[in-house]
Amino acid sequence: MANRVDDFNAFRTKMNERILGVDNRAIKRFFGVDTLTYEAGALDGKTKEMLGLVASMVLRCDDCVYYHIIQCKNEGVTNDQMFEIFSVALTVGGSIVIPHLRRAVAFLDELDPKAAKS
Amino acid sequence: MANRVDDFNAFRTKMNERILGVDNRAIKRFFGVDTLTYEAGALDGKTKEMLGLVASMVLRCDDCVYYHIIQCKNEGVTNDQMFEIFSVALTVGGSIVIPHLRRAVAFLDELDPKAAKS
Amino acid sequence: MANRVDDFNAFRTKMNERILGVDNRAIKRFFGVDTLTYEAGALDGKTKEMLGLVASMVLRCDDCVYYHIIQCKNEGVTNDQMFEIFSVALTVGGSIVIPHLRRAVAFLDELDPKAAKS
Amino acid sequence: MANRVDDFNAFRTKMNERILGVDNRAIKRFFGVDTLTYEAGALDGKTKEMLGLVASMVLRCDDCVYYHIIQCKNEGVTNDQMFEIFSVALTVGGSIVIPHLRRAVAFLDELDPKAAKS
Amino acid sequence: MANRVDDFNAFRTKMNERILGVDNRAIKRFFGVDTLTYEAGALDGKTKEMLGLVASMVLRCDDCVYYHIIQCKNEGVTNDQMFEIFSVALTVGGSIVIPHLRRAVAFLDELDPKAAKS
Amino acid sequence: MANRVDDFNAFRTKMNERILGVDNRAIKRFFGVDTLTYEAGALDGKTKEMLGLVASMVLRCDDCVYYHIIQCKNEGVTNDQMFEIFSVALTVGGSIVIPHLRRAVAFLDELDPKAAKS
Repeated sequence: MANRVDDFNAFRTKMNERILGVDNRAIKRFFGVDTLTYEAGALDGKTKEMLGLVASMVLRCDDCVYYHIIQCKNEGVTNDQMFEIFSVALTVGGSIVIPHLRRAVAFLDELDPKAAKS
Repeated sequence: MANRVDDFNAFRTKMNERILGVDNRAIKRFFGVDTLTYEAGALDGKTKEMLGLVASMVLRCDDCVYYHIIQCKNEGVTNDQMFEIFSVALTVGGSIVIPHLRRAVAFLDELDPKAAKS
Repeated sequence: MANRVDDFNAFRTKMNERILGVDNRAIKRFFGVDTLTYEAGALDGKTKEMLGLVASMVLRCDDCVYYHIIQCKNEGVTNDQMFEIFSVALTVGGSIVIPHLRRAVAFLDELDPKAAKS
Repeated sequence: MANRVDDFNAFRTKMNERILGVDNRAIKRFFGVDTLTYEAGALDGKTKEMLGLVASMVLRCDDCVYYHIIQCKNEGVTNDQMFEIFSVALTVGGSIVIPHLRRAVAFLDELDPKAAKS
Repeated sequence: MANRVDDFNAFRTKMNERILGVDNRAIKRFFGVDTLTYEAGALDGKTKEMLGLVASMVLRCDDCVYYHIIQCKNEGVTNDQMFEIFSVALTVGGSIVIPHLRRAVAFLDELDPKAAKS
Repeated sequence: MANRVDDFNAFRTKMNERILGVDNRAIKRFFGVDTLTYEAGALDGKTKEMLGLVASMVLRCDDCVYYHIIQCKNEGVTNDQMFEIFSVALTVGGSIVIPHLRRAVAFLDELDPKAAKS
């Protein structure tokens, strides 16, 4: 059931290691900034992950959406809240977002099969 | 000092009236969905406005950014929080966001000239 | 031969039902606006589907392109007309559209295997 | 009243001449393809201009939108039809299109001040 | 090992033939301009392929990225240079580029399995 | 003659100082990465600026284009080379790039009024 989630995580981990193993300072530092950006500060980590999710969805990057869905779940975002984030992305980004929304919901349901049936 | 803010609001109000005065149901209903999207629900209104701001910034629409900055200020988003939203947009969207960030900060400072000097 | 078309339609139907089964008014109403937009009015349904196709292609959303290709075929758009829509998308959107054009033509040929051989 | 329209056309003409005066074959030929794309064929010129307009609007290029509005008017597209093209762009492209819609309608009204008052 | 590279090239060749076999002058000429654009002139072919690669990466088109990686390798771009092109794309385009970067590096490693292990 | 260039540089400098004066580490570090990215390494600084220019142009950010035009001029990129960079951007990005191309050439001519007349 969770194969797609596992495959996603395995490829992500493997390629990040490959990329960070290269001697390129700008890329390494970019990855550092990326981590720093989501650390709690004036906004808590949960809010920042929600911001990352909506930004990924309007830019229509499935892998980025999957990653931030995982992070949002870890931060305690409920499914009702998740769909409200999706609705902001849909309204701002338009119907072109719908195929990404379908895949996001399918991914969410693979993460949490019980919620999908309720 | 606040001329750009006033001009922005005046043009926005005038053209919205012009557009909603046309007999086109799909456009009218889209504007209705747009309003509905930001109403408090599983997420509060403040969080939704922050989501709208980051989405607007990565899609690089200055007018949308200005509008959501006004809404965020009305919802009590502090300047420190505003810059954290900007940092998510910058990291996700890249350096291509920087000119929009400059204009966003200039707009923010026109809204609140005291904060700009601190 | 038509497996990809069937798979596309099956996933689309299943996920739309899942999404519209959630209690989120903004998303439901957005889907309503989406349907309303393509209804015949001052422009006929065929023209509107062609508009939807070219918009989907320049925004480079394969699933949206596949959906509007099906709709255009149902509205009687010929293959010669389809390729002229593609040429507008290619010129406006640039060579970055070419991989999507390849997949669009492959999808069109799966829908209508006879035309592909002529 | 029509100053913005005149300014737009004057800058467009001047810069196109400047660009086509440069000895760069790829650019010259691209401009040739751009002209060829909108010539009547399996689709008439009016339909092609409408396709160009909706594509420009979802890609959020104001100058491209203004250009195709002029072309659409010349091809006999009515204001009601224009707003239906806008509604497709709005639904496909989302609320991020709204500021461009406002400017498009303002441009349309400068082209045809009588229609704006009706 | 090189299956993905072979599949990519086979589909690309097959569909380009299908598309260029259609009687649509604008599309044919666009493909001609596309070829002309990368011919050596005031800039050499290697530089132009690097420009094509970075442009494809910030626009986030995997197939375009794969194609230009192949071309860059043929022009003698080293892996260190390739990663510097990737770093420009990452900085300009933001973290939304990262999933495309992962796939680009995986593709590069399939082209040249020895380099991947070093 | 060079007013637009001066205005561009003045606003850029003023707002960068304002932004870097804020206590936000992620934004400060992002600006550091941005500088690092264009430093000579496996590719020389001139090539990297050309990469930054073409990336900015296909993403259609006028201010980013102006900035990289200035940098490219400083690195010794000739006008013929500049137009070849523009032609890659035009082919990859499509006719939607044309209004940005017009403004880029106008900016280039303001930087170097003699070249504009030749």
